[in-house]
Amino acid sequence: MTMQEIIAHKRDNQPLTTAEIARFVQGVASGTVPDYQAAALLMAIYLRGMDRRETIDLTLAMARSGTQLDLHDIVPYVVDKHSSGGVGDKTTLVVLPLVAACGVPVGKMSGRGLGSSGGTLDKMESIRGWSCDLTLPQFRAQLAEVGLVLAGQTAQLAPADGKLYALRDVTATVASMPLIAASIMSKKLAAGADGIVLDVKVGSGAFMPTVPEARKLAQIMVAIGSDAGRDMVALLSDMNQPLGHAVGNALEVQEALASLRGAGPAGFWAHCLDVAAHMVVLAGQAATLDQARQKLLAARDSGRALAKFRQMVAAQGGDVAQVDNPALLPQAALVERVNAPQAGYVAALDTGALGWAAVHLGAGRAVKGEAIDHAVGLVMPVKVGDWLPAGAELATIHANDPARLAAARQAILAAITWSAEPVSPLPHIYETITGATNG
Amino acid sequence: MTMQEIIAHKRDNQPLTTAEIARFVQGVASGTVPDYQAAALLMAIYLRGMDRRETIDLTLAMARSGTQLDLHDIVPYVVDKHSSGGVGDKTTLVVLPLVAACGVPVGKMSGRGLGSSGGTLDKMESIRGWSCDLTLPQFRAQLAEVGLVLAGQTAQLAPADGKLYALRDVTATVASMPLIAASIMSKKLAAGADGIVLDVKVGSGAFMPTVPEARKLAQIMVAIGSDAGRDMVALLSDMNQPLGHAVGNALEVQEALASLRGAGPAGFWAHCLDVAAHMVVLAGQAATLDQARQKLLAARDSGRALAKFRQMVAAQGGDVAQVDNPALLPQAALVERVNAPQAGYVAALDTGALGWAAVHLGAGRAVKGEAIDHAVGLVMPVKVGDWLPAGAELATIHANDPARLAAARQAILAAITWSAEPVSPLPHIYETITGATNG
Repeated sequence: MTMQEIIAHKRDNQPLTTAEIARFVQGVASGTVPDYQAAALLMAIYLRGMDRRETIDLTLAMARSGTQLDLHDIVPYVVDKHSSGGVGDKTTLVVLPLVAACGVPVGKMSGRGLGSSGGTLDKMESIRGWSCDLTLPQFRAQLAEVGLVLAGQTAQLAPADGKLYALRDVTATVASMPLIAASIMSKKLAAGADGIVLDVKVGSGAFMPTVPEARKLAQIMVAIGSDAGRDMVALLSDMNQPLGHAVGNALEVQEALASLRGAGPAGFWAHCLDVAAHMVVLAGQAATLDQARQKLLAARDSGRALAKFRQMVAAQGGDVAQVDNPALLPQAALVERVNAPQAGYVAALDTGALGWAAVHLGAGRAVKGEAIDHAVGLVMPVKVGDWLPAGAELATIHANDPARLAAARQAILAAITWSAEPVSPLPHIYETITGATNG
Repeated sequence: MTMQEIIAHKRDNQPLTTAEIARFVQGVASGTVPDYQAAALLMAIYLRGMDRRETIDLTLAMARSGTQLDLHDIVPYVVDKHSSGGVGDKTTLVVLPLVAACGVPVGKMSGRGLGSSGGTLDKMESIRGWSCDLTLPQFRAQLAEVGLVLAGQTAQLAPADGKLYALRDVTATVASMPLIAASIMSKKLAAGADGIVLDVKVGSGAFMPTVPEARKLAQIMVAIGSDAGRDMVALLSDMNQPLGHAVGNALEVQEALASLRGAGPAGFWAHCLDVAAHMVVLAGQAATLDQARQKLLAARDSGRALAKFRQMVAAQGGDVAQVDNPALLPQAALVERVNAPQAGYVAALDTGALGWAAVHLGAGRAVKGEAIDHAVGLVMPVKVGDWLPAGAELATIHANDPARLAAARQAILAAITWSAEPVSPLPHIYETITGATNG
């Protein structure tokens, strides 16, 4: 079985066998399959697709391509979450300390910003000295001692995914349902989670613009996890407007800290409570979602969740003074308000454009490896369905460059669609998809 | 315009612009486009196709990617031929000296065997000392002095084609109509031909199994050449049985020499006469194909064509004693007859399988760069439509290994379909497609 034959099968629309997929993934991980053959196969997969069995085979082969973590000596039931990425999505920063404060230890490996979506690691690095660069022994030790770890993805887990992801990025083969599902789920399976909550974003600021597409992605990921014996919950959550108000790294850390103090935006808090409740129920620390929500509220209101966050920051070398006083986080030199140019209802927000506005202010990367400016971004308290008078505050821009500030102002104004007629607000969650284990 | 964007356009079924195609081809030639991006685009082209304008743009960009030969200081009208490849196709060895002997100088760059098809250079190298490795000044000097040159493809002509061809071979993207057409025609255009005769093979031993497919390939190549101001003729010729009787390098040289002496198989000779007549008419040395055939017959019968072949061999360092006495060409140790296992009409021959039988005897390469055995092969005087008694000679196998001989015997027997009812013989030519120049 040569790689040419495997490529030819997918090219000719034949499903790849389990052995063919394993041969490909092992070859990518070991470096014996050259990039040009992998690229040709990725394009054939992009254009021909993969059925459910192939996608599961691909995911399992990728999960097995490196170290497979087993944390059961530390945590009886390992729970994890994943967000498909969105604008203003600082959910992890709130959900993890909440869940940990309810007696569910969480060790999570996160990523960096991609396109118009921010990344958890970039946000956390707004805190002076905080490092995501942990060895596996450090990761395990902190999980045992603190019950909360937030680390970078290690190259030891699912190494085939890392190589394929880099290749997809430069060969126009990112936006493929089976490749996305396999990339996400291979890392989660290799990280050894017993239960996984998938936060699949839907809308103008998400990778999946519509509910049917997001549902398809969620279903295949739930199927993969279930087949692998994991407990799965997928939420299809809204990304037709930014999550919360803040978009930009230090601004989002501030909003997360405010939420842990009970002072964050209501919609964002509701979303955090939903994600966290599913994690607590999966971990067996509550019988129902309502019970879980009550526990989580208590963890917030007692200050235990914030204390857990502070403890994690300290353990990872971060400056806890910035946690105690968020005003010490990086601040932009220029802070200017954008006013509503007219009265009316907010009918729609081009959320991707708002994310790109923050990227262009310096909050994200136009090119891989670029440095980012943690201070800049925007705070936009406006939601779809709001009625605003002319001159009302639409957003506040935090910038370190006047030209970029002006560009962001234009981008924000262009991202809003107005209506003279009332418009319904958007739901937080469209659907919940669950999967039982095979075991 | 990034390569990712160009790949994405073809992936999404948008025709590539002239500028996008030029950017890709120049990047391949200069090495700034990495192989993995080229491979992804090749697969997208394979699966999405290219329209006529794109295919012409691709060909012209590839033709311009290196040196463009101009031989008009030596030859007033440069004529060339190309065969799409088949089993037993030694046409070039007969046609070139015939045409040159009619006062039409020909300098041709040829290739090596590929898959079940033999290569002109491999065949010629059966002659001791003969070399295809000429510099461009040597090529020009021999064309001026001898009027006949047979050289290897230089890396200076259409270098983008060389790189893309190597990549297609290992990424399962060979069998794409626009990529095949651009590969063939870019080399011919860069070699500076004014008139080109394309011998497009059709059938079980050819790349194109049916007339409609071969016609489509021929039409696009004629269109490319016509658009570039060249005179074009394409013959759709039969490859449902080997061309002539001999398959294998020295055996084919022997058959070519026999044909130049007037003693070759009739069907093969008819084919050579057709190809050569079109070349002579294109070059203005005859007003009609019939006039051209008469001139060509005279060139054969007078011995001038054979003398021209001998002169070319001498100029390129070959042993003319082997031309004068073909029995001195490499001989196999084992020569065995295969007899008809039954009486009947020959209904069909699996010509590709016969080609592979010769390759497995050692006449071709299973892996790139492998050494070949010039002595081995098969001689099969049987044609579709022939009636044979049981025990009649089907073929003679020339081998240097008893196990390989046995395998070839089985392959030959399996390649024949018998019929009790009469079967029509196959035509030599199915169709002739011509293209007028734009000039």
